[in-house]
Order: sequence, then C-alpha cells, then structure tokens
Amino acid sequence: MGILSGLSSPADLRALEVEQLEELAEEIRQLLVQKVSATGGHLGPNLGVVELTIALHQIFDSPDDPIIFDTSHQSYVHKILTGRADKFDTLRQKGGISGYTARGESEHDWTESSHASAALSYADGLAKGLQLSGRRDNTVVAVVGDGALTGGMCWEALNNIASGQDRNVVIVVNDNGRSYSPTIGGFADNLARLRMERSYDEIMEHGKKTLKAMGWVGERTFDALAAFKEGVKSQVIPTEMFPELGMKYVGPVEGHDLKSLLHALTYAKNYEGPIIVHAVTEKGHGYAPAVNDVADQMHATGVIDPLTGAALSKSQPDWTSVFTSSILSAAEERDDIVAITAAMAGPTGLASFAEQFPGRFFDVGIAEQHAVTSAAGLALAGMHPVVAIYSTFLNRAFDQLLMDVALLDLPVTFVLDRSGVTGPDGASHNGVWDMALTSIVPGIRIAAPRDGAQLHELFNEALDITDGPTVVRYPKGALPTEHVELMRLEDGVDILHYSDADSSLLDVLLIAVGSFADLALEAAPRLEALGLNITVVDPRWIAPVAASLIGLAADHDLVVVLEDGVIRGGVGSLIAEAFSAAEVDTPVRRLGFPSTFPMHSSRSELLAEVGLDAEGVVGSVTGWLESLVEDTEEA
Amino acid sequence: MGILSGLSSPADLRALEVEQLEELAEEIRQLLVQKVSATGGHLGPNLGVVELTIALHQIFDSPDDPIIFDTSHQSYVHKILTGRADKFDTLRQKGGISGYTARGESEHDWTESSHASAALSYADGLAKGLQLSGRRDNTVVAVVGDGALTGGMCWEALNNIASGQDRNVVIVVNDNGRSYSPTIGGFADNLARLRMERSYDEIMEHGKKTLKAMGWVGERTFDALAAFKEGVKSQVIPTEMFPELGMKYVGPVEGHDLKSLLHALTYAKNYEGPIIVHAVTEKGHGYAPAVNDVADQMHATGVIDPLTGAALSKSQPDWTSVFTSSILSAAEERDDIVAITAAMAGPTGLASFAEQFPGRFFDVGIAEQHAVTSAAGLALAGMHPVVAIYSTFLNRAFDQLLMDVALLDLPVTFVLDRSGVTGPDGASHNGVWDMALTSIVPGIRIAAPRDGAQLHELFNEALDITDGPTVVRYPKGALPTEHVELMRLEDGVDILHYSDADSSLLDVLLIAVGSFADLALEAAPRLEALGLNITVVDPRWIAPVAASLIGLAADHDLVVVLEDGVIRGGVGSLIAEAFSAAEVDTPVRRLGFPSTFPMHSSRSELLAEVGLDAEGVVGSVTGWLESLVEDTEEA
Repeated sequence: MGILSGLSSPADLRALEVEQLEELAEEIRQLLVQKVSATGGHLGPNLGVVELTIALHQIFDSPDDPIIFDTSHQSYVHKILTGRADKFDTLRQKGGISGYTARGESEHDWTESSHASAALSYADGLAKGLQLSGRRDNTVVAVVGDGALTGGMCWEALNNIASGQDRNVVIVVNDNGRSYSPTIGGFADNLARLRMERSYDEIMEHGKKTLKAMGWVGERTFDALAAFKEGVKSQVIPTEMFPELGMKYVGPVEGHDLKSLLHALTYAKNYEGPIIVHAVTEKGHGYAPAVNDVADQMHATGVIDPLTGAALSKSQPDWTSVFTSSILSAAEERDDIVAITAAMAGPTGLASFAEQFPGRFFDVGIAEQHAVTSAAGLALAGMHPVVAIYSTFLNRAFDQLLMDVALLDLPVTFVLDRSGVTGPDGASHNGVWDMALTSIVPGIRIAAPRDGAQLHELFNEALDITDGPTVVRYPKGALPTEHVELMRLEDGVDILHYSDADSSLLDVLLIAVGSFADLALEAAPRLEALGLNITVVDPRWIAPVAASLIGLAADHDLVVVLEDGVIRGGVGSLIAEAFSAAEVDTPVRRLGFPSTFPMHSSRSELLAEVGLDAEGVVGSVTGWLESLVEDTEEA
Repeated sequence: MGILSGLSSPADLRALEVEQLEELAEEIRQLLVQKVSATGGHLGPNLGVVELTIALHQIFDSPDDPIIFDTSHQSYVHKILTGRADKFDTLRQKGGISGYTARGESEHDWTESSHASAALSYADGLAKGLQLSGRRDNTVVAVVGDGALTGGMCWEALNNIASGQDRNVVIVVNDNGRSYSPTIGGFADNLARLRMERSYDEIMEHGKKTLKAMGWVGERTFDALAAFKEGVKSQVIPTEMFPELGMKYVGPVEGHDLKSLLHALTYAKNYEGPIIVHAVTEKGHGYAPAVNDVADQMHATGVIDPLTGAALSKSQPDWTSVFTSSILSAAEERDDIVAITAAMAGPTGLASFAEQFPGRFFDVGIAEQHAVTSAAGLALAGMHPVVAIYSTFLNRAFDQLLMDVALLDLPVTFVLDRSGVTGPDGASHNGVWDMALTSIVPGIRIAAPRDGAQLHELFNEALDITDGPTVVRYPKGALPTEHVELMRLEDGVDILHYSDADSSLLDVLLIAVGSFADLALEAAPRLEALGLNITVVDPRWIAPVAASLIGLAADHDLVVVLEDGVIRGGVGSLIAEAFSAAEVDTPVRRLGFPSTFPMHSSRSELLAEVGLDAEGVVGSVTGWLESLVEDTEEA
C-alpha cells in the first residue's frame, strides 16, 4: 500500500500525478475487496466509485467544500481517503466504523442517513446556508446514484437548486444503471440514451486539437476548453433534460478514467452556479466476481471468499423466503394479487414473483410515495396490491398510507421486512418505528407473526381483508423456533403458555409481539421458578386491539408488553389505551426500545443492551412486582 | 341557467355545439361566483378550470374513463357537471357536499385527499389495474396543477407512467403559473418558456391551412391534423422536458378556448399511450375581483360580496398573525433565523417575513420533503431554520424529520399551523395526527401553546434550543382567551387552576394540551360543583414529558388528558408511558379524537361530536369516577 500509506489527508492527493492516482485506485480496490470480504458490506457500489472519489477529493477541498453521498453506503473510498483506512476491520461492528458516513467519525462526514434521494436537498440547504454566512466561494458537492434520482425528493431539490444560479452546487450523477437492480422508468431510459452519445471526453480531445490548431492552447488552456465545451455541449447531447430545469450539464464522463474525471470536475468547480456532472461507472468495477454477479453486482455482501466472491456464511431459512413462497401460492390462486417494490425486488423476496407473474409485478424505482399511491390506484381498479418494503422505508410514505390508502378504505397489504432492530446497517436502517407509525392510521390492521408458520397464516388473512390497509411486519434474519399455540381465542389471540399451579398471589400477563414470543417463552419458566404465575399470549393482530386482551388483563396483577419496536406510541401504549377506554386499570409495563437511534451493532447485542434478552425481562418484571407489592402493602 | 338545467349527466354534453358549451361555461361561472361567495371555498382555482372541465367531460366518458383532480379543490365544475349543481348551498358544511371529490357523493369521484401531487400516482395505478382487468381501452385522466408538479411524487409518477407506453394515461397540466403564490423553481421557468412559444392552436390553424392546400381535408381531417401535429411539435417547442422522459407532449393549449381544448383532448384520447396536454389557464378567469387579487387570485375565500369580492366576515386576530409578529421580531435580533415554506407563504404567515428578509426566506414549492431536508442543510451551515407548514402537510415529510433532521440533532423549528381539528376543509386537512407522529421522533421537543402570549413565548424558547428539532403547534382560527398561570413549576409546567377547599375524597388532575386549556378551565368549576377537587395544568412542552407531571399524578386519584389530536399514540399515551416507566399507576383517561377521519363540518361541531366540549368533559370525568369508586368499594 505504497501511496495510500503516505496520505495523511485528502489534501495530500493534490501533489500526486494522474499515474499515481491510478496506482492509488488499484491499492484502494484491493483494500476494499480484502476488508469487505471479511466483514460484509456494500462492496459493489464502492468498487464503482474508486476513481470518482479520488478525483472528488483531489479537486474539492473537503470539508470546506462539503461532499455528500447519496446514499452514503458508497462512502467507503471517502472514508479510506479521510484517515479511516486502518479501521476497515471493524466495519459495521459494535464500536467500529459505520457503513455510512457518520459525523462522529470525521469532519469530512456531513450526513448519516442511509435513505436515498436526500443528498440534493441537503446540498441545496447547505449552499443557501454557506451563502448567507459569507462562505459563498465554497462548493457543495452531492454524489447521487441514478437509482436515487428516481426518488421524488431529487426532483424537488433539482427544481430548487436550479433556482439558485448564484450558488455553487455540483451534482455528480454516479450512473451505473442500477439501484439494487437496473434503474427503471422514463428517466432511466433517458440516461441510457445519454450514455450512448459520443462521450464528453472524446469531445474534449477533439476540442483540444481544434484549439491547438487555432493556436489557443497556452496558459489558460483549460478555461478556454471549458468555454469551448459549452459551445459543443448541444452537439454532444441533442436533447437535454437538465437544461430544461435551468441546470448546466456536463457529460457523460467515463467514470473510471481519472483524467476525464479531473477535467470535468475542475470545470464544474470553476463554473459559477449549479452544475451536473454525469459520470458513467460500473458497479463492482475491477473485481470480476462482482461485475459478473447478474443479480446486483454484489450490492451488499456477507462474508465472502475474496478470490471467488463465494459466500462463506451459510444461508439459513429466513423470514423473507417464507414471504416469497406465501405470495407465490396466493398469486397462483388469485388473479387480483399484484406486487409492488421500490427498487428492491431481490431483498424483499419478490424476485420469483417477478419472474412468474411479470404482468402483475411493478418495480417503481426508489419511489416509496409512488409505490403506495399507485398501489391505491391499483386497488381502485379492483386489485389487491402487496407492497413489499423494508420497514424503515415506509417512513417515506406515511402520508400516502394515511391519505391515499386508508382514507379510501382500500385493501392494500404492506409487507414490512427488516422490522424491529436490524443491527449492522446502523441507525437509519432500523425498523423500530413501524408499529407506532402505522397504528396511527384509522382502520388499519397490523399483524406481527411470531414465526414462519404464522407469517404464512397472517399474510393470507391480510389478503382476505377487503376494507382497508393491512400490515404484516417481521424482522431481519433467520426464522425463530416455531411455537404452536395451546389455545386460540375467538378473536385470534394465541395462548402460548400458562402456569399450571396457581400457587402464587401474583399473576403476570406477558403479551409478546411477533418474534418476541420466543423471548417471552424463555423468560416464563424463570419467572415461574421465582414463584409467579405467568401467562404468555401472542395477539397476532396487534391493531385493532383484541377484546380478549382486556379480559385477560382484568384477571392479572401486571401486564407486560414485549415489543421489537419503540415504546413511544408502540403496542404497549396501544394496548394501554384500550385498557383505559375499557376502564381496566391493571398496571401495564412496556419492554421495547427507548427513544434513541440504535447504533450499528449486531441485533442480539442491541437487544441485550436495552434489556430485551431473557435475563433483562426477568430482571425488569421482578423489579416492577417488588414495587407493586410494596405499594400495596403501604396502602 | 338554460343549458345547465337541461343536463342530467356529463354524457349530455356530447350533444352540444361549441357555442352552447361556451354559453354553459358562462352559466357555470356565474353559479360559482354566486354560490361560493355565500359559503366560502376555493373560488379562484375553479373559475380557472370551467372550460377545461367541460371539455374533459365532453371528450372522456366518466366514470369509465376516470378523471382525477390534483388537488380536488379544483373539482367544483366537475361536481356541477355530475349532478351536484343544486347542492352548492351546502358546500363544506356539515351534511353538505365536500370541498373535495368524495366517493360517497358520486361515482364520478375517485379520490378524496386534499394533498397535492398524488393524482399521477393514482392514475398510474389505475391504468395498470384497468389493463390487468381487461379494460385497457379506457383512459385515465389526471388533471394536475403546475404547482403540484413541483412535488416529488409527480416526478416519481411521471417516471413510471412513461414506462407504460401500452397504457392510456392523459395528464392534463393545468398551468396557471401559481400554486397559492407563483410556482417556483427551474421547472416553473421551463413551463413559462413553453407558454411563450407560438401556441399549439396557432400551429393547428397553420396546419389546417397547409393540409387544405394539399387537398387533405376531408373525413379524417382530425387524424391527419394530429399526425401533422406530431411532426411540427418539435418546431413548436424547441427544447422539451417531458419527451426526455419518453412522454408525448401536446401544447401549450389556450385553456379558456373550448375549441382548442376539444381538439387537444380528442387527440389525447385517440393517442395510444401516455400523453401530456399542457393547458394554460388563468386562475379566477372571468371574475375581475379574483383576477385582480395579486396575493393569490382568491385561491380560497371566506364569505364575500359577489360583486366586489370584498370579504364580508370580519377578520379577528388569529394564531397565524401572532406567529408572524414573533418571527419578525426574532429575525430582527438574530441573523441565523431563516424561514421556509412549501408554497404557502401567505397562509402560514410568512408573507411579511418574505418582504422584510427576502434573502433569508425560501419558498421551495409544494415540496414538503425538500422543505425539511433543505432546512437540515441550512442548519448544518449554522442557521436556525423555521419550517412553517400546516400540520397535515408535515405528514409528507416524516422520514425527513426523523432521518435527516433528528438523527443529526439539528436545530430546526417546525411551526405547525392548522393543528388539531380544522373543520370545513374535511378529512385530509385535519391536523389531528401531528402530536402522535412527531413525538415518535427521538430527541424532539414539542410545544403546544394555549394562547397567543404562550405562542410567542414558546416559539422563542424553541429558537433557543440548539441540539435537535422543535415543534410549535397551534390550531386554526381566532385566538382563545389568555389565561395567566397561577404558578409555573421549575420544569415549565403551568398550574392554571386548583381547588381551594380540599373537601372531597377525590382529586382529579386535568392535563390540558394547548388551546384546550380553555376547555379544561370551563369544565373545572362545573366539576367542583359536583364535589370534586380539580387541578388544571398546562404542560406547555408536551414532549419530553415534564417530571413534575409524574409527581402531580401520584397526588391525584385520576389523571385526565385533554388533547386536540388523536388518542392513538397522542399526549395522553405519551404521559402514560412516562408514568408507567416511573411506576406511577394512577389511572389515566384520554379525551381526544378517536381513530377515524373527521368529516367536513365546523370545528366546534366536530369537537362537540366527540365529547370535547365542557359538557362532554364533565360527563366523561364523572362517569369514570363513578366506576373507579365502585371498583374501590368492591375491592
């Protein structure tokens, strides 16, 4: 690692010649493959931006020129160039470096969220703020994928950035033709057309020759070239979208050619006003196993063999695969089942559906708002749409769920994968807010299956509901043990456990949400050993609250709700509201997530930290009971 | 009303000649002015679409060809043409017709929400659904304002609609150059350029002459003309945005000329695939007081004199005006205060700020997502942004508040006007969800001022908070009586009332949120007259929960929370969570809105309906106490 080890800050890049930068790119690519293959992470996207990131840090003066990545899973190279090369062994691990930019790690990191399409809005605001505070000469750079550009926020931002012709915003479109899967829509077709045009660089070469012939090449060659380029631009790209917005456009630039990148970015830096640089890159570039991965060019990998790219961690049957088989069998029986994804067919388990029912499958791009409201439109036409989405990304479409689906009582089923705490992806990938959020929606029904069998069953129950939205939510990862109920009550609540010997004065009702059934059943015998009577129930449908829970509560001394989500507004509170309305005042205690952003760590580490392991549950319940008994004795 | 009275369904329009349609337009315009001046409503927008709506119903076959309005405050003419002309005396009143499309009113109404930019997504879904169910020959029509096109959802939808070249979607851009105020951004500039081009109609005339000269005009004149038009289109509009998306574009069409509209829409109906018709209209057209209203062309009026357009209802000092003076005085003192609106400077009270501090004012278009994340960007650059927005529209930017602002602990102040129940605007304008929604966000502080003085005070407290987002929320309309506190506790809670004589066995703590202080203070003496001790407190900051409330709860027999928002996840539950965490088990009861969509009606009618008037409060509290006493006696 000859060159990399000599760099102490991005400013050092400026002393290097292009050939040295190319060597550096090679070093970084090797580092990425070596390190990420050992930890897992976003390999493909980062291999695609090695040269681009080097060029950005060579031309711009970070952090005074803020560089914002959209999404920042493509910031590994940026991290390497800003002093974090030696920390890649700890990537995405507890106490280690984040898989996204993180302000606590470096002054070169400005944002933290992993949600797409936000960088241009940040950039617009930052540029306005820099202008107001007298730092107008600094340039704000946003690196945005072509996939992220299918998100509506980008349009809103472009429309505003274009209005600020006196502010310096450089938008680098990192166009690899893909988000997870190939980018969809009319916009993608347009980018593809642009890519086919004679390249920017060819034109530059042609211009250079012409200028030389005209005797113009001298001290200010580049400026002249730049001015010339403005003239030829309309030849390069006969029809243009960005100029329609009043936005200067440069491209397409070969995104793995440092010379071209440096030219284009220098021009962009010197340009007064907002400008778009269109860089064409290849996801996984330089690493054959990634380039040849048809599914998603190793967008995100687990631990792999660095030589072959083969997965080293064994794959276990997981929640997602149960959903896949459930929707396939439902769709075989019913013509009205259609499926929608926001650019994540693979990760949400819809890939097989897309193959088997291509006419009933819609990938709308990274466009959650459109996913939800177009589902409403499909429902208006008589379909039963299934929107398969990560829990965290439904946050983007709350208004659409509320106003476009629920207000019209439309039968749309939302399947929320990666609900609850997710782990290594960090704060913004966690699905701990979905139950608090979706339960606000009038008329909604929310199911939290405890295991694979229940996922299948509840998903099918959801498909049979015709008068309003339904949600089926489950966590990331491997399936838990299946627990068959001892008894199912009339309103669908499952009794999973009750204490045989009624020997205690104290009866505790554990209401376990979804996969936490396992946790409650682990804690139950330990609590019984302390002399308590324990009932464990799984409500299955957490909204609306089942009437039988109210009856059960009246027969117990304490109700404890265990949920894989935030306490604020969560299932514990939903149930407590129902108890209060029924004037049942059995004390309710909540075990869930506090109001903070869980940092990257493993799922089990995060759960244990907040007392959501068996030991934590036993400790909390016994502590509460002690206080209750004391209060009773005092009274 | 000669022609209008003879119409029994939109199909009858097809028998009319253009001259008769023009007469009909005149009749409808008179009806609109006469009726809406008496009830209040969206006058300007509807005057602008009289000819357009007539032409749409003449050419398309509603409801088989669904027509969707974005937003549907521009659906009055549609309502008049679909059998509801005689119901305009009841507009926006309890039991009367809605100010938006409403499925319960007519089979010609497909959607209900008043939120902008959703129609194209509905249209995309509907067209997909029609295709799947064998109704591919029907056309889905979406009428969308140029203002709504600044919203990101439209971009997401356009990108998808363009991919469906085998589906019939007609997008009519109703371009009046305005949302409330002039439409902003690069996109608006582009539309303005298009408007300046030689008009579609001139070209049509030219084409007609040319074709005549060529001997082509005969039976199939229109088809030939249409084909011809495709050829000349690129002359009409030298640079094009929509075709870049792969979308056919026709326009600009003079939006008050029925002949041109009928031509263009016939062409669009016959075109196979998605197509955009760009109609240039004038808001308030044909009614001088509206046309001459510089502020917003009578976008939405109260009761007015139909001749002069002068307001007949007196304006009272309201919440919005207090915010206006508060932000002006703050901005005079602090350079870092900047203000952001999503196309609603006037209604949110920012018009004066925009005049006095133009460099610190940003209208981002109908683009709530960008409003919030660009505010985050401004905060990153050291500003303290104030996002002034209606409560209901913040629903659009929940993810941005959570991930782009709160995750970074940025000091952005959200000022939510029209919080709580709003009344005549109907279901989708209500701000009953904001407290449940925003209180999910980690680290957020939420203030609910009880009166004008408190709004001023709490807004300034919010501006002094530097480590995370703050919310100040208040309802629509006139200010309530001011109530000076008897005592302010250390953590900011105000004691507004307590019972002097401790004569009762039962102590009730009323926690009144925001403007409901008035309601609690009205109920308190009536409850005291029944022999109860009553304490009324205003927490001022509802999140985080003040510790003193927990202490107070421990000293009372019942806690009742009164809130102008939904019970589900609302302040009552937020407080109950804090009590539970502190192991304080005083029964908590909640008075707020149930989980339904409040229909249009007056604010006071809606409050009374759910027991949120003094009588309702007294009845609920006494009922609860009776049960509690019974339970205690039984125990």
